[in-house]
Amino acid sequence: MSGRQKVIIDTDPGQDDAVAILLALASPELDVLGITAVAGNVPLRLTEKNARKICELAGKPETKVFSGAARPLVRPLVTAEEVHGKTGLDGPNLPEPTMPLQTQHAVDFIIETLMTEEPGTVTLCPLGPLTNIALALIREPRIAPRVKQIVLMGGGFFEGGNVTPAAEFNIYVDPHAADVVLKAGIPTVVMPLDVTHKALTTARRVAAFRELGTRVGIATAEMLEFFERFDESKYGTDGGPLHDPCVIAYLLKPQLFKGRECNVVVETASELTMGMTVIDWWGVTKRPRNAMVMRDIDHDGFFELLVERLGRL
Amino acid sequence: MSGRQKVIIDTDPGQDDAVAILLALASPELDVLGITAVAGNVPLRLTEKNARKICELAGKPETKVFSGAARPLVRPLVTAEEVHGKTGLDGPNLPEPTMPLQTQHAVDFIIETLMTEEPGTVTLCPLGPLTNIALALIREPRIAPRVKQIVLMGGGFFEGGNVTPAAEFNIYVDPHAADVVLKAGIPTVVMPLDVTHKALTTARRVAAFRELGTRVGIATAEMLEFFERFDESKYGTDGGPLHDPCVIAYLLKPQLFKGRECNVVVETASELTMGMTVIDWWGVTKRPRNAMVMRDIDHDGFFELLVERLGRL
Amino acid sequence: MSGRQKVIIDTDPGQDDAVAILLALASPELDVLGITAVAGNVPLRLTEKNARKICELAGKPETKVFSGAARPLVRPLVTAEEVHGKTGLDGPNLPEPTMPLQTQHAVDFIIETLMTEEPGTVTLCPLGPLTNIALALIREPRIAPRVKQIVLMGGGFFEGGNVTPAAEFNIYVDPHAADVVLKAGIPTVVMPLDVTHKALTTARRVAAFRELGTRVGIATAEMLEFFERFDESKYGTDGGPLHDPCVIAYLLKPQLFKGRECNVVVETASELTMGMTVIDWWGVTKRPRNAMVMRDIDHDGFFELLVERLGRL
Amino acid sequence: MSGRQKVIIDTDPGQDDAVAILLALASPELDVLGITAVAGNVPLRLTEKNARKICELAGKPETKVFSGAARPLVRPLVTAEEVHGKTGLDGPNLPEPTMPLQTQHAVDFIIETLMTEEPGTVTLCPLGPLTNIALALIREPRIAPRVKQIVLMGGGFFEGGNVTPAAEFNIYVDPHAADVVLKAGIPTVVMPLDVTHKALTTARRVAAFRELGTRVGIATAEMLEFFERFDESKYGTDGGPLHDPCVIAYLLKPQLFKGRECNVVVETASELTMGMTVIDWWGVTKRPRNAMVMRDIDHDGFFELLVERLGRL
Repeated sequence: MSGRQKVIIDTDPGQDDAVAILLALASPELDVLGITAVAGNVPLRLTEKNARKICELAGKPETKVFSGAARPLVRPLVTAEEVHGKTGLDGPNLPEPTMPLQTQHAVDFIIETLMTEEPGTVTLCPLGPLTNIALALIREPRIAPRVKQIVLMGGGFFEGGNVTPAAEFNIYVDPHAADVVLKAGIPTVVMPLDVTHKALTTARRVAAFRELGTRVGIATAEMLEFFERFDESKYGTDGGPLHDPCVIAYLLKPQLFKGRECNVVVETASELTMGMTVIDWWGVTKRPRNAMVMRDIDHDGFFELLVERLGRL
Repeated sequence: MSGRQKVIIDTDPGQDDAVAILLALASPELDVLGITAVAGNVPLRLTEKNARKICELAGKPETKVFSGAARPLVRPLVTAEEVHGKTGLDGPNLPEPTMPLQTQHAVDFIIETLMTEEPGTVTLCPLGPLTNIALALIREPRIAPRVKQIVLMGGGFFEGGNVTPAAEFNIYVDPHAADVVLKAGIPTVVMPLDVTHKALTTARRVAAFRELGTRVGIATAEMLEFFERFDESKYGTDGGPLHDPCVIAYLLKPQLFKGRECNVVVETASELTMGMTVIDWWGVTKRPRNAMVMRDIDHDGFFELLVERLGRL
Repeated sequence: MSGRQKVIIDTDPGQDDAVAILLALASPELDVLGITAVAGNVPLRLTEKNARKICELAGKPETKVFSGAARPLVRPLVTAEEVHGKTGLDGPNLPEPTMPLQTQHAVDFIIETLMTEEPGTVTLCPLGPLTNIALALIREPRIAPRVKQIVLMGGGFFEGGNVTPAAEFNIYVDPHAADVVLKAGIPTVVMPLDVTHKALTTARRVAAFRELGTRVGIATAEMLEFFERFDESKYGTDGGPLHDPCVIAYLLKPQLFKGRECNVVVETASELTMGMTVIDWWGVTKRPRNAMVMRDIDHDGFFELLVERLGRL
Repeated sequence: MSGRQKVIIDTDPGQDDAVAILLALASPELDVLGITAVAGNVPLRLTEKNARKICELAGKPETKVFSGAARPLVRPLVTAEEVHGKTGLDGPNLPEPTMPLQTQHAVDFIIETLMTEEPGTVTLCPLGPLTNIALALIREPRIAPRVKQIVLMGGGFFEGGNVTPAAEFNIYVDPHAADVVLKAGIPTVVMPLDVTHKALTTARRVAAFRELGTRVGIATAEMLEFFERFDESKYGTDGGPLHDPCVIAYLLKPQLFKGRECNVVVETASELTMGMTVIDWWGVTKRPRNAMVMRDIDHDGFFELLVERLGRL
């Protein structure tokens, strides 16, 4: 591939979102056209601020950050302060951002970008609930064939869910948005819990970030130490799953991941299984394949990439 | 009440929408801030054009018409050409409109209007699927407490549905949008099929429009004659139900209608009853009242009002 | 038709069930092969006892009464003491029954009867939740083509429900059983609330029972006076709907009722509309007709029949 | 534990059911009070016959075999001839059975046994859809506290399903029955696909049965070779999962299995996830624990036990 990949990162930071943003901003292969915030891990007023905090931490205050949907399409907002802390970025002590929030609405930015950039050149990277992406598709259906691909973190199958037994948080928060996105006919790569639970922030790996000795390295270590405590306690593991950076790592080194083209449908009818991503891994239905679902990761390679790149900031 | 009532008409014309628009434009009590088109009876490119055709028929080409959502929030669009004809306004021969479509998106117009007009002064009049209204509420939740009231045509209970046994067309097309709107905490008046099926376009009543002898009167008669044939054939009645003008008539003469404050919930979980408005008319649940649901109409008074007002155009 | 119609009455008495049983036992056209009790209005131990009390009140202690299902197929039992009183037969002071309960299980009696009587000669008359009938069909599917017809009280459409906004009590209590019965391919007549709410126990009609001067007449008046108070208070009517006797009256004088062959499907997927009988009265779906659904009743003729017959006991 | 464990095996043979029956009949620790057949892998008339074929193969024609439900509670029967072959026992050439089928209905046998045996002494071993067990619980709720435990093969979670992406066959065929059983308050052990997919019939293991040199050993090898071809082709494994014998092995050597007390709920509302066993393995809900769900197996120990025991027949 020649030239930089144009990406829009749609996100609800969240410590793991933060690391994903840092990875993207540190990578010359990527041209981050904008970062669009959405309500999810914490409310919108925090996620848009957190996105700016991270851009400043990365030393990239010129990055465009947009504010999007404050609530899911249909269901009331559910947040995850028990995982991410009250601010969503608990752990390091990051200063209030001084870079501006863009005045354009995130959804309008997504639409405008896709309608003006050359078709097939812009990748969407959703790291949170899919509300902004779905709202863009509803408002301007003509963007669908212009998206190069969507690479998203969400769902889970063989690992089950994390917020309910059957549902992963991002999809659970806005299952209707996920349904809209997965039915849009856009080439889509899914990074489910099945992958991210194989990318654990072990003590050794966290130490590697700290040993960078930089502001970014130390803040990353502090974020991960806060973030991992929830899943360590729940699963009894050394380290927690580092979800969102998998999306960006895939753009940089797709060979780190292995998966399969499958049919994926989101449950929106039953409260018991609401937001479950029903992945037909074994092809037992006749439903058409609509996503590349990843299941395996070269986790050592993944963390090597992360440390190397964050070391550049 | 002193001063004119400010209204936004959200609509998918449709012959009965057209009569509702004519009624509104003919009534000095109402200040039609804008007409927002949505996909429903026919696709969006036809409903926005039809809205303009009707403004021109009314001799009000200065009316602002906006184009909104081309599809429902979650489900694929269902249209009703079998009722309204290929154009949505089959019947009269109306010229292509020459007045412009506004460039602002309907949803942005709704939001901007509500955020700039004095709170509690603007009434929303949805005559079609509630997609535009829901999209406005999702994008800018702060509009909810600023809306004076919503008076909408949709749903049905004692009459059952019309598009499925249990669901009325407007709600069925976008049940998720209806769910969002009914949960928004806005004072809401519902004109269901239970009312509109008591407002039949009998031969005598259609003749009264024609006898106005005006372009508007004759076009209205032609629209109604086309429109009523579907329900006449289905129900074996003299005339079809004149749904949407009930919304505008309520603003002009609320005493024409009788109803009850009830809880109303929209079914979004089951395909069998999808889009049903479950109205707790008898108060058998503990769910809170969230709408004034009309059930009776002074139909003679209603048609008198219509003929008198349309005669002014 | 020559000869007496063989019937099995499946019931959860309940005052209106009691009047239906009295009507059947008073009518020489009917050969009541057995009465099978089911849990519904009150628990099974009361419904089977109430059935025997009524047989003794009718002076027919030789009637065979069987005990059946104590709970619905899938959902927990819901009862209606607020309507029927603590005993299910509140109102008159009826003595404890001395006639025996049959030792055979109600479901086995239904199966054995249908497998031994000539095919096409036995009518099932369910007046309560359809648990016993469904259990018989599940246990011995070969009975289905041997049933002459099912005439049941249950459901509602244009009247809505009574236990929830959408569901009538008998179907709501065991929607899965109703689903099994309506899919069994048996000729079925449904007496929904749409009929029974037109058969009101007005003061004049109750007086007519009392004026019979008999034990049966006086006890009937006392039962109805107790029973009607719930619906009178809810609907503000003179008298309550006399549901279950419509089933027996239909066997005696079908011309009292008017209805239509329709498709009927029971909602079992959504809690909001659980147990609703979705009746395609207007034929808007392509689903096959599986029931004759009654909607109108000659209520004067109905009460005349009742008084005349109960006067014979 | 002194004395033999009394068990009722409820089954829809099926090759893996057959091996489970052989294991039980070969094991002196177990007192097989009866084998109850149910429709599942193949229709009832085949499963009851297959159960008798296996008793005769085991040299135990005195075993009591009962015929039960020919269809699930609510949904139409789904079978699995593509897995088990036309007869359900494809593979070996087994003679038609000459031992009699008991005349008592399976459901009545289950009830009578539980009501007459000392409470807390009888274990139910369902190897197929749970229709018979649910029907017994519906017909006679007093059996619930008298059951010692239920050890069932069904469901799956981390492995997903086998008949749909989310549902395992036994539960999918009668999800309502599974719902009834799991809510009955009976101590229950679940052997899901998560266990059984770790018990593969590798070539070496099949050879070990054949090398027994007995009729039972050779027939078992032939059954397994037929049975495994479906899953081998689907999953690309050496051997297929040997589901049902896990239930009997657990009674003999519980230490072969590891699991966790969890809440398990069966999905019955949504067609997409119908019959899924939603297992709250990580305790993320507040729902009470209602089953011991196994997840790991000492597969070598399991096959050693099987070969040793089948060698006794």
